[in-house]
This record gives sequence, C-alpha cells and structure tokens, in this order.
Amino acid sequence: MKKKFVLAPDSFKESLSALEVCQAMEKGIKKVFPKAEIISMPMADGGEGTTDALIDATGGRRVYKKVQGSFANTNVEAYFGILGNSNTAVIEMAKANGLELVALEDRNPMITSTYGTGQLIKAAMDEGVDKIIIGIGGSATNDGGSGMARALGAKFLNKDQEEIPLGGGFLKEVRTIDMSDFDPRVEEIEILIATDVTNPLTGNNGASYVFGPQKGATEEMVKVLDENLKHYAEIVHNDLGKDVKNKPGAGAAGGLGAGLLAFTNAKMQLGIELVAQTIYLEDKIKEADYVFTGEGGMDYQTKFGKAPYGVCKIAKKYKKPCFALAGYIGDGADVLYDEGMTAIFGVLSQAQSLSDTLADGAKNVERTSENITRVLAMNEQKAHL
Amino acid sequence: MKKKFVLAPDSFKESLSALEVCQAMEKGIKKVFPKAEIISMPMADGGEGTTDALIDATGGRRVYKKVQGSFANTNVEAYFGILGNSNTAVIEMAKANGLELVALEDRNPMITSTYGTGQLIKAAMDEGVDKIIIGIGGSATNDGGSGMARALGAKFLNKDQEEIPLGGGFLKEVRTIDMSDFDPRVEEIEILIATDVTNPLTGNNGASYVFGPQKGATEEMVKVLDENLKHYAEIVHNDLGKDVKNKPGAGAAGGLGAGLLAFTNAKMQLGIELVAQTIYLEDKIKEADYVFTGEGGMDYQTKFGKAPYGVCKIAKKYKKPCFALAGYIGDGADVLYDEGMTAIFGVLSQAQSLSDTLADGAKNVERTSENITRVLAMNEQKAHL
Repeated sequence: MKKKFVLAPDSFKESLSALEVCQAMEKGIKKVFPKAEIISMPMADGGEGTTDALIDATGGRRVYKKVQGSFANTNVEAYFGILGNSNTAVIEMAKANGLELVALEDRNPMITSTYGTGQLIKAAMDEGVDKIIIGIGGSATNDGGSGMARALGAKFLNKDQEEIPLGGGFLKEVRTIDMSDFDPRVEEIEILIATDVTNPLTGNNGASYVFGPQKGATEEMVKVLDENLKHYAEIVHNDLGKDVKNKPGAGAAGGLGAGLLAFTNAKMQLGIELVAQTIYLEDKIKEADYVFTGEGGMDYQTKFGKAPYGVCKIAKKYKKPCFALAGYIGDGADVLYDEGMTAIFGVLSQAQSLSDTLADGAKNVERTSENITRVLAMNEQKAHL
Repeated sequence: MKKKFVLAPDSFKESLSALEVCQAMEKGIKKVFPKAEIISMPMADGGEGTTDALIDATGGRRVYKKVQGSFANTNVEAYFGILGNSNTAVIEMAKANGLELVALEDRNPMITSTYGTGQLIKAAMDEGVDKIIIGIGGSATNDGGSGMARALGAKFLNKDQEEIPLGGGFLKEVRTIDMSDFDPRVEEIEILIATDVTNPLTGNNGASYVFGPQKGATEEMVKVLDENLKHYAEIVHNDLGKDVKNKPGAGAAGGLGAGLLAFTNAKMQLGIELVAQTIYLEDKIKEADYVFTGEGGMDYQTKFGKAPYGVCKIAKKYKKPCFALAGYIGDGADVLYDEGMTAIFGVLSQAQSLSDTLADGAKNVERTSENITRVLAMNEQKAHL
C-alpha cells in the first residue's frame, strides 16, 4: 500500500529554505519508498521565511514593490506574496523594516518608521485581495505602527496642525490623528497578524523596554520611546476610540501590533497556527501515514510556537507518527515527546565549522530522512509477517 | 513481551570506550523500554581498544607488565588481558610498540624492535593460558618480528656467531637463527592474529614500502628495510623451514605478521571476526530483537573489517534489525545497507569543534539511542493494533 508522507518543516536558517528542506526529505524518503506519495508543506511561524513558505505551499507568487526603508530617506526593494489557494496576501514587515536591513552602527529606533510596511499593505490591497496575513517580527522600529498608518492615509498632526516627523522619537508631538484621507479599503480587508509575542505596548514588559535595546536604543532612548508610546496610545484612544495599550501583542514589532489593532480590524494569532490553517495542514496530516518536520535548531523554546511544535500537535490529534530533524538539538527539546513528537534526530554528519554545517544542509537532511524511513520500512515488513 | 537488545559497538576513538558506548546506548534505550533486556558486547576490530573490549565483554582482567619499549634503552608499562570466559590472553602489540608511544621526531624504524611484544607473549604464557589473541596494528617497528622472537629465546647470529643489534636496520647481518633456547611453550599455545592487513612481507606492497613512511622511514630507509626483510625471510626459510614472505598479512606490523607465522603456529583472522567469536556474539544476536552497533567514524572503509560491518553481517544472517550510530558519517557508509545494516544515524547535536564533540559523546549516543528506540516503540504499538 502506497505510503503517504506529509513534510512540514520550517526553514533551516541560513542553510535551507523550508521548501529546500522538503526537497531534501523527499529525496531521502524516495530512496526507500520510491512510490511514496509526498505532500510538501513548507512551514513557517510568522517570522522570516513565512512569505516564501506560504507561496511554495500554495503555488502562489511574489509581488515586488519598492517601498520606503526604515529610514525616511531610504528605499528598499521588498516583496510580498499572493497565495495560490485563496485571494490572500502575505506580508513580512521585515522585508521593509527588518532589523537585518540596518547596519549595526546605524540602528536608531527613534527615527525608524513602519511607513514601508504600510506601503506594502497598500500594494497588497491594490492587488485586490480579501485578506492579508502579516508577519510582524524582527523589526528595526519602535513607532507603534504610526508610520504604517500614515502610509495608509492617516495624518499625525502636532499642535500647529502640521504633520510630525516619522519615527517613535517624535510621537510625543502628536495632538490629533486626522483619518479623513485614510484608505477606505482597509476596513474591508480581513487582516490576521502572525506573532508569538504577547507583550503589551508600554511599561517594563512593553515594546520599548523589552525589544528597544536590540534595535539600538540606549537607556535614555528606551525611556523616551516608552513615554511616547504611552502618549500615542492615549491619542489613539481619544481619536479612534480604541484602547490598545494593554492588548496582548500590542508591543510586538515596536508597537506595530498596537497600530494594526488600532487602525485596522486585525486579529492576532499564533504564527504557526495561522500558517497551518492557511495551507490546510490539518487536512493533509489527517490523511497521512507519516509526518516529517524540523527546523535548524530545536530546544525548550520550540514549544513556544515554532513549526515543529505546531505540526506535532496536529499529528498527535490524529495519532500520526511525527519525526523532527534538526541541525542543533538543545536542552529541553524532549518536552515535545508529550506533545506528539515521536522522535527527534540530529542531521549532522561530522564535527565541522558552522558554515560548513550550513553548506551541508541538504545532504544531511536527505541522509537522515532516508535512514528514518529505512527504520519505518523495516517495521512495515515486520507488520506483514 | 520484554525486548532484547544486543549492543555491539566499537569505541568512539578519543571519546568513548566501547563499554562506555554500550552504557550510553543502554541509558537511551531504557528511557523508552525500562524493562528491556540489554546485552552489552563492547566490540573491537583487533586494533586499539581490543584488549579492554574483550575484558569488558567477558568479565576478564588486566595484567600489567613492564616491558622494553620500541627503543632498546626504554621501558614501557604495558598490559594485556586475561578473558573471563576462557583460558585466553589478549595482547595488543601497540601497548608495547605502538607508534603513538613514540614522539614524532624520534621515529626511526631502523632501530625499533618488537622485543617488548615478545615479552608480553612470554608474560601471557606465564599466566598459564592455552590461547593468545594478538592484535597487531599501529606499530612503530619494521623488524619482521625478529625482536619478538628474540624475547622468546631465539638468537639472531651474525657471521661471527654474535647476536646482531635489535631493529629492522640490522637484519642484513643475520646469518643463522639459533633456536636452542627458544621457549618450548610457544608451540603448545594456540595463537590467533587479529588483523585486517593482507600485505606480503616485502616488495612494493610490503611492510616497508607501504607502512614504513608513516613510521618515520625516509626513502633511503624504506629501501634498506625492505632488502633486510627479504634477507631475513630467506634465513627464516633456511633455518626454520617456513616460507612466510608472501603469506597474506606477513607484512602487517612491520613484518611482525611474518614473524608470528614463522616462529609460532599462529593463524591470521579478520580482527572483527575473531573478536565476535571470542565473545560469542553470534549466539547473542541470534536471540536478540534488535542490534545496536557503531563507531566514531563510518564510511566506505567500514566494510573492510570494522566492527559495525562484522556485527551487521551476523544480524543479517539472523534477520535482525541492526542500527549503527556514528559521530562521523562519510561517503560510502551506505554500502552497509546491503550487508544487513538497517539504518545509520549521526549522533551530533550541533556544529562544534572536534574536541567539544568528543566531550559530548555519551550524551549524544544516549539521545540518539533513545530516539531510535522511540521509533521502534511506535512500531511496536502499531503491530499490536
């Protein structure tokens, strides 16, 4: 009887895209079961790689758009995805406002803004989509999503009715938010925010204090940025009637979470669940014999919302064997055994430098997949005796 | 039904002894099957670690003996083993004459001799054994085993009836071999040579040309040593009536192979087979449900006589699943699939330096064994549905 394998790994960061992991797994499995049915579902958790994973999983396409970078006088060539299975766009804010796009010495969350992300949202709407999935992680910004709102037509006015400069450092100056030119399409679109962050907008647990430093904020800046976001939230509450300051996830992406909750009808969802739903992963796993997953590194943090966790939970629900492959296995990965993970295997073939390891990713995933499948094949024979 | 696991790995060189590998495997397996019956059979292939593996596998003991080192004016504290399951000694020549005991700059196969190895043989006979297993690999010598013979009472005389100096560089001077004081016990003892070397004593494929350089022989020395061994083989033929020059394995250990074939009734055998027989591995595998094996590094050379090969061959004979674990998996390891190896898994948990990898050996073997066993357990459940 033909074996059905669902392959649902995340990317192996800096080594293989999620699709490449699927391809390597498929090669390995087919060395043992050449006629196996392979269903490749490249996964992501809302962070880097989500756009490509969803495009690959649904047969979608990229749309390129030059937008403003995190700094007002810069541009960046970004892209978002249009899925192949629905009238949905998927946006990673990091494509416009990613921290990795900013050189270490230039990082300054006082002046960076999410304007470019707003432009991506606008471009997605121009494609005529009904729904937008937006992954908000890895940003260089701390502006509460005000830049995003402004790219969609909101005007942030100071006491002299002039628009304030872009950037979290200037939010203190806003007195009113003029929504008269706000893009009317925004409220028509279903927006889903993929994130695993639950922090509020402000305070010790908020965007500025928790994530500001890694974006280059000094102790002084952190205080200012936090105060500014507090003020911003008040103005938003006054002018938009929305109280977003303490909503879980409001603090994500320098407060872009709050901005989306305020200016759109966005809802937040654990990235991995959102991705799984979008590609109908559960339907596929329900019909599978075996499930393969994995990612570059697995440890106690995997259970907090990484792809292997999301996948094995579904596998557990349908009592399907689920195997994870990883380049790095750290302490605490074994908590996944109780969540439906049958076994976890390291893929490395030898002690070598990190860069050599990254280069050998495909070969290692293929070989490990082949060997796991050889064990499964052995048991297939035994079961028939 | 209680599961029976036979664990028959080799050592992971510079990381874990074969027994330590067994212990780590057992810990991992018992996390899944706490009541499993574990039969530990630490393996070796006749090379380094063979003595300890056989002692551990049979409940034997070490016997320490100070003997002459490779250089005549040196001593070394060596040991051999007395097995726990038979009146047998196991000797590794490398304990007296190992290349690793000689500093790089001192290596000189012209003057090193196997005298100390002969002393170990004598000491073993003093223990009253019926049989000696001798592993001959990794030597610093090129003396055709003449040193060994002399430690057992043979006299190598020059044209003036004086004993020649020890060392392969002086063999040209021997005119007769006086056996009048040769230890009479030698011919009573069964001697088995564990080796995977098949080279003849002399010529381009012989001891001096093939192995001389790695022992420190210059091009000049290689020529002299080879000529000397030719001459030695002639004298041996004349005086002992034995023609050993072209016997397969005569060239092993700088010609110690030839010396043992000439001066004793020794027979050669593939190390891994000899070890397997000595510990009755086949009987154990016959009764097992699963077999685990492995060694530090596996590649195309494993099939040439390494432990995992010997083990999976026996497993294949009795149709038992056989799993190999390794720190390093190189090209060509997959030829073992046709020899009975069910699957091969790398044990590393992350990209790290070689020394860190070696330090993590036990943890890695334990984790990998646990995960393989988790896959087996999954199938145990399925089989009962």
